[in-house]
Amino acid sequence: MCRWLAYSGEPLQPATLILDAKHSLVAQPLDSPLGAETVNGDGFGFGWYPTDPGPGSVPGLFHSIEPAWNDQNLRHLTRAIESPLFFSHVRAAAGPPIQQTNCHPFQHQNWLFMHNGLLAGFREVKRELTFAVDPSLYPEIQGTTDSEVLFHLALTFGLMDDPVAGVTKAVELVEAIGREHGVAFPMQGTLAVSDGVTLWAFRYSSQHRTRTLFHSADVETLQQMYPDVERLQLFGRHAHVVVSEPLNDLPGAFLEVPESTVAILDASGYHHQPFLAS
Amino acid sequence: MCRWLAYSGEPLQPATLILDAKHSLVAQPLDSPLGAETVNGDGFGFGWYPTDPGPGSVPGLFHSIEPAWNDQNLRHLTRAIESPLFFSHVRAAAGPPIQQTNCHPFQHQNWLFMHNGLLAGFREVKRELTFAVDPSLYPEIQGTTDSEVLFHLALTFGLMDDPVAGVTKAVELVEAIGREHGVAFPMQGTLAVSDGVTLWAFRYSSQHRTRTLFHSADVETLQQMYPDVERLQLFGRHAHVVVSEPLNDLPGAFLEVPESTVAILDASGYHHQPFLAS
Amino acid sequence: MCRWLAYSGEPLQPATLILDAKHSLVAQPLDSPLGAETVNGDGFGFGWYPTDPGPGSVPGLFHSIEPAWNDQNLRHLTRAIESPLFFSHVRAAAGPPIQQTNCHPFQHQNWLFMHNGLLAGFREVKRELTFAVDPSLYPEIQGTTDSEVLFHLALTFGLMDDPVAGVTKAVELVEAIGREHGVAFPMQGTLAVSDGVTLWAFRYSSQHRTRTLFHSADVETLQQMYPDVERLQLFGRHAHVVVSEPLNDLPGAFLEVPESTVAILDASGYHHQPFLAS
Amino acid sequence: MCRWLAYSGEPLQPATLILDAKHSLVAQPLDSPLGAETVNGDGFGFGWYPTDPGPGSVPGLFHSIEPAWNDQNLRHLTRAIESPLFFSHVRAAAGPPIQQTNCHPFQHQNWLFMHNGLLAGFREVKRELTFAVDPSLYPEIQGTTDSEVLFHLALTFGLMDDPVAGVTKAVELVEAIGREHGVAFPMQGTLAVSDGVTLWAFRYSSQHRTRTLFHSADVETLQQMYPDVERLQLFGRHAHVVVSEPLNDLPGAFLEVPESTVAILDASGYHHQPFLAS
Repeated sequence: MCRWLAYSGEPLQPATLILDAKHSLVAQPLDSPLGAETVNGDGFGFGWYPTDPGPGSVPGLFHSIEPAWNDQNLRHLTRAIESPLFFSHVRAAAGPPIQQTNCHPFQHQNWLFMHNGLLAGFREVKRELTFAVDPSLYPEIQGTTDSEVLFHLALTFGLMDDPVAGVTKAVELVEAIGREHGVAFPMQGTLAVSDGVTLWAFRYSSQHRTRTLFHSADVETLQQMYPDVERLQLFGRHAHVVVSEPLNDLPGAFLEVPESTVAILDASGYHHQPFLAS
Repeated sequence: MCRWLAYSGEPLQPATLILDAKHSLVAQPLDSPLGAETVNGDGFGFGWYPTDPGPGSVPGLFHSIEPAWNDQNLRHLTRAIESPLFFSHVRAAAGPPIQQTNCHPFQHQNWLFMHNGLLAGFREVKRELTFAVDPSLYPEIQGTTDSEVLFHLALTFGLMDDPVAGVTKAVELVEAIGREHGVAFPMQGTLAVSDGVTLWAFRYSSQHRTRTLFHSADVETLQQMYPDVERLQLFGRHAHVVVSEPLNDLPGAFLEVPESTVAILDASGYHHQPFLAS
Repeated sequence: MCRWLAYSGEPLQPATLILDAKHSLVAQPLDSPLGAETVNGDGFGFGWYPTDPGPGSVPGLFHSIEPAWNDQNLRHLTRAIESPLFFSHVRAAAGPPIQQTNCHPFQHQNWLFMHNGLLAGFREVKRELTFAVDPSLYPEIQGTTDSEVLFHLALTFGLMDDPVAGVTKAVELVEAIGREHGVAFPMQGTLAVSDGVTLWAFRYSSQHRTRTLFHSADVETLQQMYPDVERLQLFGRHAHVVVSEPLNDLPGAFLEVPESTVAILDASGYHHQPFLAS
Repeated sequence: MCRWLAYSGEPLQPATLILDAKHSLVAQPLDSPLGAETVNGDGFGFGWYPTDPGPGSVPGLFHSIEPAWNDQNLRHLTRAIESPLFFSHVRAAAGPPIQQTNCHPFQHQNWLFMHNGLLAGFREVKRELTFAVDPSLYPEIQGTTDSEVLFHLALTFGLMDDPVAGVTKAVELVEAIGREHGVAFPMQGTLAVSDGVTLWAFRYSSQHRTRTLFHSADVETLQQMYPDVERLQLFGRHAHVVVSEPLNDLPGAFLEVPESTVAILDASGYHHQPFLAS
């Protein structure tokens, strides 16, 4: 099972969340209370927007197939920069080779995309899904994962104009083609998407039993609840984290994103709405 | 420009040809008198059949993205084994990422395949060519190179039953689809194919100006011509090498494989025949 | 905690033990019932002697920093060869960087060496121990691990003439210098050493609480005990495995090597004797 | 032969110099008019100080053993950040293994160090030089290069208090110990050192025939000389580059740093003074 984290808020040294949290993304692989597998050493990715992101800012990207907990480049990079919006992802390979081109997040122009989950029966449906990608986008596919195909389907269906609609149509196609091939529950997973300004986080599976997803509580409330937790002072009042597993054990600090939901984080804060909820 | 070497003959320590030849495959990148580019540090591959290869022997494979001239695993491996039939390849990336899954030779069951050259305009024709691969073979494609697609097209068209026919049909499709997309000369390159018993080496380009390909002269003749060249004593009387560039400067040691030709090496020795020669 | 396996016996496809055993070395990292840490993805090594090893045969070596459970080169290599004596090792980095030069086994001429354990307080004693390595051997040190220094100390103290004496003196120096620096228990671990003919396996720690080490029971006895276990038919009557953790759950298949012992495997079979037992 | 570049001036996207210059550091390996070897694919490094560097700012570091001209992380990173002082280095391995810990620049606290050249006869003098490193610094040595030992000798001799004095004493020791071992010309190379505020660049060899080193001319003068060269508008008036080979062909744009000289770049601009000039 993969894991991911997305941050939006005041510019922050990414290491604060990626390396230093009690249950950080990099520590999680060693001891994952909620994960189905016990090892996540199959590729790491980090994508970040610069401090003054316009609507067309191209994010930075770092992909590595070294074990994240020993990656010196990752340690240096996530301490040397600050970013108001960043993604990080630890991969557990479910088949496709471990190589940088299979590491999340995937990027297209100013957009980032990452996924924790899988397209069931991908070996059977890969060809049909891949040929449903717009021919102008097809050559952009660099790796061999189900997630990258899903991203390019969402781009094909208008993600850049309307992310929720684009992802909706992509998931509907995955479900339709999967079921044609006898796959009972084709879609599984949580997705993060951003254009550098807004962050969309989807939690959805065909079986309505999706992998976990959490968002952080309001920082000011947390600071009042836990005045002695010094670490909370590192965060600004607009800081929000969406993450596959809670980063600490503080009761109330992380709230579950409901099943079949898309959470949206922008200048107005956090809100969520139903996604493909039947 | 990539480079490759294929050996067939008495079991031999592969390092003898890959590392120790005067113009070895690993030294060539540093000083390539015939090559168009001056650097070939973008991936190395080595495939070898065991000493008693039956028709269905699965070859060993070693792919590396480290510079071959410093790869300790390659040095150890090619000295620790002997093989009666092996391929090696140095890649110069022409676009697709440098990753193990893009390294030659490619393998399917007991077959090996490698390529020095390119499918012109691959970005434009990739989708259509990939779509022409048999759906049962499609999921086997692991990387993103033109060469791997070409191999799977040849498999689709019966390479395993009739290698010359399979490659012919694959090249014809590449040329047909390329020309539909306005590519004047779609196919370029030399190919090596083997099932562990016979070695086929193709030299062909749409423009009939194909990259070089050489085969070694008869070993006994060479030993008589050069009685003082001790190195020649390392080779058995059935030893044959096919290679993109001569491995030494001995006049008469390497003979050019003609344009639009397939060379065939089997128990009866070396012979060649026209390939797509108009 | 690292893990290792050493095989001696009839020539065998190494994958039989490294990949295919129930609790194989490559599977172990994912689920290690006896290990102190839960992840071992920090480097893999494999060293093998050829099928007709003379006293001076140089072994093959393969070192990789990719996760072993997904390493295609390892899969191919350990199926494509046979070997009568091989070592394999999975590393859990305890500090020194993850790089090929820090992967076990280490090699010197026809000798291989590997270690599961550590020199306590290595950061404090590294300089003094390294200084004690024979100046002619000093330039051979390629990596930065405690284990490689220990190997070169044993070489300095005559390992190639008398392995037990060489290791004894090396461990005694480690203990003397460690204690000078206030380290209570300087030496911890199991070691494997071979010249290609004989295999020595040491289990020793200053505290006499050494990590586990097991050797396989007599194959013919096992085949009689478990006539229905087909897998046992893969092994010849001289096959012996020494390993940090049992490879299967068959009662009686793996026997513990006692504390403060060196086990010796040669043409006469398995025996052991006290090592630094006070 | 390695190559390096150091920039000091207004905050700049490092890709401007590392990737986009006519003879960029990344392009140079493919076609090096002044270099002795033709390939430099043996490791890349990039170190950068943040935009508001105080005297104690820890720089960011990125080390890679992938070919720099295809490294996607490098491309993303050097476009996603800006830095007022950065180093980059392409390595040609002269012996020590290709691994991240052997990549320049080397870092100690807020200091960066890189080297193009070699300590002649390093195999013979390595032990003696390494044991001359201060015992408290000895454990910091992570790799196996001559350059990293030279850096730690300079640190031992006070580099952090007085860089010119520290490097002087380190070079003098290299020369003294080299000559004791019969090495005629022990020191060769150009060095770059910085604390994040000032940049020191040394050009020195025992034979007084040192590899080339250049510094850029005054930007305002260049802009007046070449009003039509749009690229020059990218640079601020305090921009200075020190580099092993000129980055463009504009006459007057790059001036040679004299033999046996240390160049110093700080808020007052560029100046230089003799270094070990006899």
